[in-house]
Amino acid sequence: MKKLNTSPISGMQELLPSEQAVFSKYKDSIWEVYHRHGFLEIETPMIDRAEVLFAKAGGETEKQIYKVVKTEETASDADQALRFDHTVPLARYVTEHESALNFPFKVMQIGRNFRGERAQKGRFREFYQCDVDVLGRNELAIEYDADVIFALDEALEVLNLPPRLIRVSNRKILAGFLDELNLQEVAKEIASIIDHAEKVAPEKVKAWLDELAIGEERVVQVLQFIEISGEREAVVGKLRGFGFENEKFNEGVAELEVVLKTLEKVLKNSSAVADMKIVRGLDYYTGTVFETILPDYKEIGSICSGGRYENLAELYTDQKFPGVGGSIGLTRLFYIMSENGLVRQEDAERKRYAVVPFNNDEAEVAFAHEVAAKFRGRGKDVDIVFSKKKLGDKIKYAAKTADYLVVVGENEVKTRAFKVKNLLTGEEADSAV
Amino acid sequence: MKKLNTSPISGMQELLPSEQAVFSKYKDSIWEVYHRHGFLEIETPMIDRAEVLFAKAGGETEKQIYKVVKTEETASDADQALRFDHTVPLARYVTEHESALNFPFKVMQIGRNFRGERAQKGRFREFYQCDVDVLGRNELAIEYDADVIFALDEALEVLNLPPRLIRVSNRKILAGFLDELNLQEVAKEIASIIDHAEKVAPEKVKAWLDELAIGEERVVQVLQFIEISGEREAVVGKLRGFGFENEKFNEGVAELEVVLKTLEKVLKNSSAVADMKIVRGLDYYTGTVFETILPDYKEIGSICSGGRYENLAELYTDQKFPGVGGSIGLTRLFYIMSENGLVRQEDAERKRYAVVPFNNDEAEVAFAHEVAAKFRGRGKDVDIVFSKKKLGDKIKYAAKTADYLVVVGENEVKTRAFKVKNLLTGEEADSAV
Repeated sequence: MKKLNTSPISGMQELLPSEQAVFSKYKDSIWEVYHRHGFLEIETPMIDRAEVLFAKAGGETEKQIYKVVKTEETASDADQALRFDHTVPLARYVTEHESALNFPFKVMQIGRNFRGERAQKGRFREFYQCDVDVLGRNELAIEYDADVIFALDEALEVLNLPPRLIRVSNRKILAGFLDELNLQEVAKEIASIIDHAEKVAPEKVKAWLDELAIGEERVVQVLQFIEISGEREAVVGKLRGFGFENEKFNEGVAELEVVLKTLEKVLKNSSAVADMKIVRGLDYYTGTVFETILPDYKEIGSICSGGRYENLAELYTDQKFPGVGGSIGLTRLFYIMSENGLVRQEDAERKRYAVVPFNNDEAEVAFAHEVAAKFRGRGKDVDIVFSKKKLGDKIKYAAKTADYLVVVGENEVKTRAFKVKNLLTGEEADSAV
Repeated sequence: MKKLNTSPISGMQELLPSEQAVFSKYKDSIWEVYHRHGFLEIETPMIDRAEVLFAKAGGETEKQIYKVVKTEETASDADQALRFDHTVPLARYVTEHESALNFPFKVMQIGRNFRGERAQKGRFREFYQCDVDVLGRNELAIEYDADVIFALDEALEVLNLPPRLIRVSNRKILAGFLDELNLQEVAKEIASIIDHAEKVAPEKVKAWLDELAIGEERVVQVLQFIEISGEREAVVGKLRGFGFENEKFNEGVAELEVVLKTLEKVLKNSSAVADMKIVRGLDYYTGTVFETILPDYKEIGSICSGGRYENLAELYTDQKFPGVGGSIGLTRLFYIMSENGLVRQEDAERKRYAVVPFNNDEAEVAFAHEVAAKFRGRGKDVDIVFSKKKLGDKIKYAAKTADYLVVVGENEVKTRAFKVKNLLTGEEADSAV
């Protein structure tokens, strides 16, 4: 009988070992892909200065930050809170360690972040984010935008997902377009409307725009603009067709073209399109913006997103660090995959051997360790089942926990030979140490 | 110029990428060893019910628990705090998920824990622990004690440490010994004195024992007892020589013998001895106790420790889970290794290629991606250096960040052949895609 409530707090991911094995495999595979793409790993503390975290948060996020109560022995410390993303600690890290880093700084962070938001199915208060960022000092080549999107896509590739579609836009295009329509003053509002456009009915979007009192003609122009999407050439053609001489607009179109051209060449099992509906939040991003969706599971929404920002650490330093980055929200993605039957247990990959000493006597136990060492040396996971219980009980346990079985008795100890039984097929193979 | 204090909070580990690479390699290697020894991974939330965490903590630890302030949106949640070790969440996990687990449950946990203790050199408030535990339901064979110690030692092996010594004892021996001397009433006090004996002068230990007013003869007997240490046969001989018929005492000696016999057979580059000075804390452990030290660096103290416990989750459930476990405190160990020059940068292992497009034009960038894909396919880390800067600047950057260099210009694009330069030796090799 339980004496206390031992369920995890609501909004926490807690997996059984078999689920955890797949989750960890995915996490490690992403880690490996990020490395192969030349990103260097860092880890920042989960507890950080409240001053630093709150400086960058703002709005909804600020309300979701968990503050940490100092203990008696840490009372003289600065006020503290739990990090809510990797970007803010990265800004602090780069400001703090600038002189020891090489720029462009290609950096990856995989770890848990914390947000105390309302409990909701599929939303987590403690969740893994897998981030990559490239940071320049004062400048950063546009080619890194495609580089980051490609690295993230290669990471998603290891999850065996259904077909992926990467939707790309550039904030400069929207900004230039609104300049041309003399809509600078409501640019923020329009960006917000576009950002929410896909979650509501088209009439609602029009109603929102009407509320801005910008005139029917411009409402229609904006509505037409955000419908622009598709293959690079067609979209770039349409955008150039506006004939704008707006510098920002044309810079955005040129950047979008470079990014998509590269992606067309490097992407293997996914495709990239231009899509003017992609805005990604409001203020942070200044150039390329992107999100990945699974067209067969549109209701899931974005599974990976990011973009280009002008100045990572402007609140912390006068030094300018432009960057481009993106993130896979692995806890949420894993949950979604589970819900949709997309998690494949075989992705965990590791095979487990159970070595069972028949009588559990000293000679058998010693020999079991020798057998275990042999298979461990070949990279296998080996569990020796120690117990005075009956052989049948031990084999039952092995059948539930392992893929291969080796029983070690008097005869095996003498001959140093044994049989390896495949517990799935029942086949037996001879082996020896 | 900095606008805010951007240093991490005192007591936090924050590494540069080159240091992080070694740290992560160590962490992953330990993870791999634990798996090969048949342990299944779990991860518990870092934020847990205060009720659960405080139930088990007590004493010093309780004062060091960080409480978490609920946000507006999580206000209806239970009171929360940050986990301070892996054992308490494991007890909650096993209670909660018992019916879905197989026993013996061989479980590993690698992750960060939090303790708000006074800032002190080499002590961390946020630190990685790498735990293994084997949990039985109602019973657990003694062979698992050696199994756990062996797995932990194999994990330490991957850190390339100097010679290791594992000191083993059994709490039943001390308990039985004190029974025989009629010292049950001060058993706790004596255990505590022994636990602190190595940190003070011998006179101090005697003074502490004198304070208990147990008579000179028994003080001398205790002092002689705790000096018993060395090879298995000698120690077991001495202990049996007491001629006690105390059941607990003899059970402890027999268990110690089994554990050490197995360790003698399986350990590769370390040795295990019996040592009656090993107590490991006060109440928690009930059988085998052990710690690993580096005899060449005695001042470091224990780098890995653990033991057998009667009942993991007694505060949470009536179900009895005896277990044996141990832990490597990796953050502290890495710090100690760094301070003593024992961290070897080459342990990070990964080799990095820098591919530099000469002019950064479209054809070169595309070919650079092809070259990168080739090496990534071979498991290498490849960074493409995009920039309109002069070649010299890009090569300078490559020299600081990579081990191999490939420059991709007009000619390479045409011939699809290129040279790979080893940046350490200056040697060049021909390659192609």
